[in-house]
Amino acid sequence: MKFNAMTGALLGALLLTLSNAYAETPAAKADKPVHGEYRDWRVLGVSHRTEKNTLRAIVGNDKAIEAARGGKINPWPDGAVIGKIVWKERPHPNWPSAIVPGEFSAAEAMIKDSKKFPETGGWGFGHWEGDKLVMNSKEKSAECFACHTAVKDADYVFTIPALP
Amino acid sequence: MKFNAMTGALLGALLLTLSNAYAETPAAKADKPVHGEYRDWRVLGVSHRTEKNTLRAIVGNDKAIEAARGGKINPWPDGAVIGKIVWKERPHPNWPSAIVPGEFSAAEAMIKDSKKFPETGGWGFGHWEGDKLVMNSKEKSAECFACHTAVKDADYVFTIPALP
Repeated sequence: MKFNAMTGALLGALLLTLSNAYAETPAAKADKPVHGEYRDWRVLGVSHRTEKNTLRAIVGNDKAIEAARGGKINPWPDGAVIGKIVWKERPHPNWPSAIVPGEFSAAEAMIKDSKKFPETGGWGFGHWEGDKLVMNSKEKSAECFACHTAVKDADYVFTIPALP
Repeated sequence: MKFNAMTGALLGALLLTLSNAYAETPAAKADKPVHGEYRDWRVLGVSHRTEKNTLRAIVGNDKAIEAARGGKINPWPDGAVIGKIVWKERPHPNWPSAIVPGEFSAAEAMIKDSKKFPETGGWGFGHWEGDKLVMNSKEKSAECFACHTAVKDADYVFTIPALP
């Protein structure tokens, strides 16, 4: 096959395809992850976990927000879902004393259903994989719950609603 | 007038009224401030201003959220409003390495209207007094703008949207 205009065009198309394929690799997508429904939820609180070097926004579905604003959170009602959005911390590039979100780390969920999760204080523990909410393994959930027993008196929730 | 059952009841009612009146004083209300529409807006970012000992949630109205998700923020579109909710920092009472919102400090606004605010990069600077959005004085706005010129290249906005 001679290298002519046609093979040149084909080669160009092939290179374009390869280049698009490269752009679609997970690594290239890392700065724009796929998010779940928590992205549209409203703010319950924020936190800076200094021992983990992470910043968090804690958001709630409508049921959780309504409960927080009404002061009806001990216990939180069935149907409330709390989302914890976690980023690695970094200094703001133009204002270094401000610690702001760097790379997105994870989004985790606490789902209140007292009938379904009686053994873990009525809460199910999950996380989002992209836009899909997935329940944690039994082992991982036990780990979550063990830590959250520190705030048993607040129905196992660390977040103190900041916009009541 | 003798002190009998009737005067006792009247006295009781009077005390109850006084106690309710007391509960309605601004001081007693301080732990539940009145919030503006920003309370229903979605998250653009969070920050920990370590030099000011404050935590912030940065939220946007629908126009701002749409722009952030579409990557159309240089410049931000007219109609975008960014809200900055500020709290004093405090260690979480049950997990001291987590810095969380303490007392509510203020909620401030940047309002994009390139025709209305040409002298300050197209942004108007305001703040909420309870649920009312009030524009800042000329002096205060000049102060806001002076600081925001540090991020002129990002259309004067410090917040780098964290959920694009």
